[in-house]
Amino acid sequence: MDDITMRYTEKPVLTNPIFVEGLPGIGNVGKLAAEHLKDELKGVKFAELYSKFFPPQVLVQDDGLVRLVNHEFYHVKRTPKADDMVIMTGDYQGLTPEGQYELSDFILKELKGLGVKMMYTLGGYGLGRMVTKPRVLGAATSIDLVKEMEKHGVVFARGEPGAGIVGASGLLLGLGKLYDMQSVCLMGETSGYFVDPKSAQAVLEVLTHVLDLKISFAELENKAKQIDQITSKLRDTEGGPEVAPKEDLGYIG
Amino acid sequence: MDDITMRYTEKPVLTNPIFVEGLPGIGNVGKLAAEHLKDELKGVKFAELYSKFFPPQVLVQDDGLVRLVNHEFYHVKRTPKADDMVIMTGDYQGLTPEGQYELSDFILKELKGLGVKMMYTLGGYGLGRMVTKPRVLGAATSIDLVKEMEKHGVVFARGEPGAGIVGASGLLLGLGKLYDMQSVCLMGETSGYFVDPKSAQAVLEVLTHVLDLKISFAELENKAKQIDQITSKLRDTEGGPEVAPKEDLGYIG
Amino acid sequence: MDDITMRYTEKPVLTNPIFVEGLPGIGNVGKLAAEHLKDELKGVKFAELYSKFFPPQVLVQDDGLVRLVNHEFYHVKRTPKADDMVIMTGDYQGLTPEGQYELSDFILKELKGLGVKMMYTLGGYGLGRMVTKPRVLGAATSIDLVKEMEKHGVVFARGEPGAGIVGASGLLLGLGKLYDMQSVCLMGETSGYFVDPKSAQAVLEVLTHVLDLKISFAELENKAKQIDQITSKLRDTEGGPEVAPKEDLGYIG
Amino acid sequence: MDDITMRYTEKPVLTNPIFVEGLPGIGNVGKLAAEHLKDELKGVKFAELYSKFFPPQVLVQDDGLVRLVNHEFYHVKRTPKADDMVIMTGDYQGLTPEGQYELSDFILKELKGLGVKMMYTLGGYGLGRMVTKPRVLGAATSIDLVKEMEKHGVVFARGEPGAGIVGASGLLLGLGKLYDMQSVCLMGETSGYFVDPKSAQAVLEVLTHVLDLKISFAELENKAKQIDQITSKLRDTEGGPEVAPKEDLGYIG
Repeated sequence: MDDITMRYTEKPVLTNPIFVEGLPGIGNVGKLAAEHLKDELKGVKFAELYSKFFPPQVLVQDDGLVRLVNHEFYHVKRTPKADDMVIMTGDYQGLTPEGQYELSDFILKELKGLGVKMMYTLGGYGLGRMVTKPRVLGAATSIDLVKEMEKHGVVFARGEPGAGIVGASGLLLGLGKLYDMQSVCLMGETSGYFVDPKSAQAVLEVLTHVLDLKISFAELENKAKQIDQITSKLRDTEGGPEVAPKEDLGYIG
Repeated sequence: MDDITMRYTEKPVLTNPIFVEGLPGIGNVGKLAAEHLKDELKGVKFAELYSKFFPPQVLVQDDGLVRLVNHEFYHVKRTPKADDMVIMTGDYQGLTPEGQYELSDFILKELKGLGVKMMYTLGGYGLGRMVTKPRVLGAATSIDLVKEMEKHGVVFARGEPGAGIVGASGLLLGLGKLYDMQSVCLMGETSGYFVDPKSAQAVLEVLTHVLDLKISFAELENKAKQIDQITSKLRDTEGGPEVAPKEDLGYIG
Repeated sequence: MDDITMRYTEKPVLTNPIFVEGLPGIGNVGKLAAEHLKDELKGVKFAELYSKFFPPQVLVQDDGLVRLVNHEFYHVKRTPKADDMVIMTGDYQGLTPEGQYELSDFILKELKGLGVKMMYTLGGYGLGRMVTKPRVLGAATSIDLVKEMEKHGVVFARGEPGAGIVGASGLLLGLGKLYDMQSVCLMGETSGYFVDPKSAQAVLEVLTHVLDLKISFAELENKAKQIDQITSKLRDTEGGPEVAPKEDLGYIG
Repeated sequence: MDDITMRYTEKPVLTNPIFVEGLPGIGNVGKLAAEHLKDELKGVKFAELYSKFFPPQVLVQDDGLVRLVNHEFYHVKRTPKADDMVIMTGDYQGLTPEGQYELSDFILKELKGLGVKMMYTLGGYGLGRMVTKPRVLGAATSIDLVKEMEKHGVVFARGEPGAGIVGASGLLLGLGKLYDMQSVCLMGETSGYFVDPKSAQAVLEVLTHVLDLKISFAELENKAKQIDQITSKLRDTEGGPEVAPKEDLGYIG
């Protein structure tokens, strides 16, 4: 079988499409953000990506039907008012380092074919402590992009993230340079202890500002309230989440 | 060497063959069920599958002869009364996620060649607690199949199995959709602490009902009695199997 | 690079060569036996096998020179008195299951080219307890071979080895059947706690009997005495080796 | 994607280039040494090597720009006074044994193309105890090289390193022999508990002597002082670094 398969239900014709990626990772920030964006912009699914680098697993939907774990691609048409968009989210990142490289490289080739020249990858930046007001850290492929992002409030801090960016959100930037693609990684600060809709919202507030989009954050705010209730209960009963392991917090999806 | 090799001792000509799979997994439910079915229906072995994705191991039979670990394929001829059958069981599942994908994909190609259009995969659903009367949970590739299975007592419960279906029993359904194959996964509830012939019987009672087969369950009932004796002894002496780890119980073979 | 490379310093012309394999494994029985046999028969090295399935490592010899970890092939010419021999030993087995399959398959192809039709693989059978007089267990590819080996004192015991034979000593038999090669695996009982020259000697006593060879065992007996001295000291001071883990003892190289 | 990609910004024309390698490993000795040498000799970067055998990671520079983890190649032109040089350093070694073989083999092919016939690989030799005056151990591909190195104070000690040399510093020698390359591995003794600029200096003192190079060691001496301050503080407060695990100390990068 092919290592990676992309199944198009539609080959969309897009104008200057801007790519946005959000996959599972620390605090699930990237995936929460990309899914919320796709929902709010009423993205239309046009392709699914399967790979033997994902877990050998199907998910069972509420109606009893199975679907293979995958990445899903949605398009949002904004022309002539603005550039079109492609949003990708998924169930898992590649399981092995080699699989992660193959997946990012494969996706870049597909994006090239769709005309993508600019990418935004979304993720979390784990601090290992509770965060009240998450900042959004950035990394980019050109100094011009760094300067532009700074105008939108993105923080480029020396030595942050110290361990670099691991996973698709980093590889797409690094490998993308070999494909002459410009890109920015936006990372919302997060404790890393819980899924973090508040951090996802912080990331999206920057991205929508950059792309001049208007969306509601009501859904993310609701999710954040639910998480807050759970964590405050935990803090009351167990003495807080400080017991959680700190080892993996540098990971950024 | 080839990653996977199929050795046919006979290329059977089958009419509308229905495929049944049962491999090692939680409670060994799938393998117990498929082997019992093959024995009762006097399945004729026609092929063996070897793969470097299996453990590098030979098994030594009672007569001192070795055989490489494998998957074995049996056919059951029922025409013109009913559709023919192909039953597959084996010693191991693939050791790596990539190997599991390759194996399921390879098997699907072979099944396609044999004319298979409908598959039943058998497995266990680990509950992490003792089960008196195991239900049979289901997952399927079409709503029509869900409805048909419900008539035979199969339970399609929202959020069960929550973690999806891992391994061949899931992949064959998920990848099978890409080959236009219809399929159902039948999962017998099991504690996950012991091999579980009772759960295998529950699964087979559904399957034989669906396929209009008459078989004896005496062998499985004997095995279940033996397991019951062992577990009740353990419960008396050690305070029960509740000490067993619960982590892996969501796994379904 | 090629996954596996065989470098011939000489392409020997052999008559009906019989292959003997002994690699590192439990008690190091197989490797000790094959190396002793090669030394006693003054085997001539004619090839080295390198592979990326071995550890990424060079060994440093006493003279300061490096050599890549490998498998080494020696020939012993006995014609016209008897069949020639090929003896293989090495530093490591393949690190991954897939690597083990690839290595055994590659070696079988080379052996086929050298005219080998009969193989003896040597290994240990871990008991997890001290062994005073090691028996030699067997497994084979035909009933005739089982019967012949029994005449030489080899034990074919129902359910032993229960877990089958893992590694090259098993795979060469299992995959060899696909190449129409006849073979026998000889396994010397061993505690599994120490390298075991006594078990290696037991294996070689059978093999030399089968092949009608006369060799000295003085070197192995010396090594066994040294081990005995170490283990009896350990038993005096620490209360014996019963503290060693029992998990891996079923492994046979 | 290709498993390994080499991107040349310049194809340098070199005379009899001598290759020097230093990658991360025990005490970071090899990498510290190679980077210091490159800095002091004002090496000019001419190529970057990317690979899916590295971690799936980008590093974020102080200016906010990302770069994919890689190996970097620098040239130093010394003709007509002496042979030219190629220095390689990098962020990581290959993650898997197979990846390590592939990387070393790939690099050897590139070096062959650049005209390299002689290589020096640099690494640490972990002792598991504090080292006051690190010796430099050696391994080589010919007896002549062993003798020459001994004249420069390199120690070739029987049984050291006992476990051989693991990683690129070893593989380049071992695989290099298959490419008819001569080479020497220089290993500075190090505790293995900390990055060890003192050991790196010891290695470079030998190498610069061998290659008749004059460089300053001020930078390494500064780094060594900083490490000394940290370790002496740790020794005061925690009872010393003897608590560190000893398992991995035999590793040499």
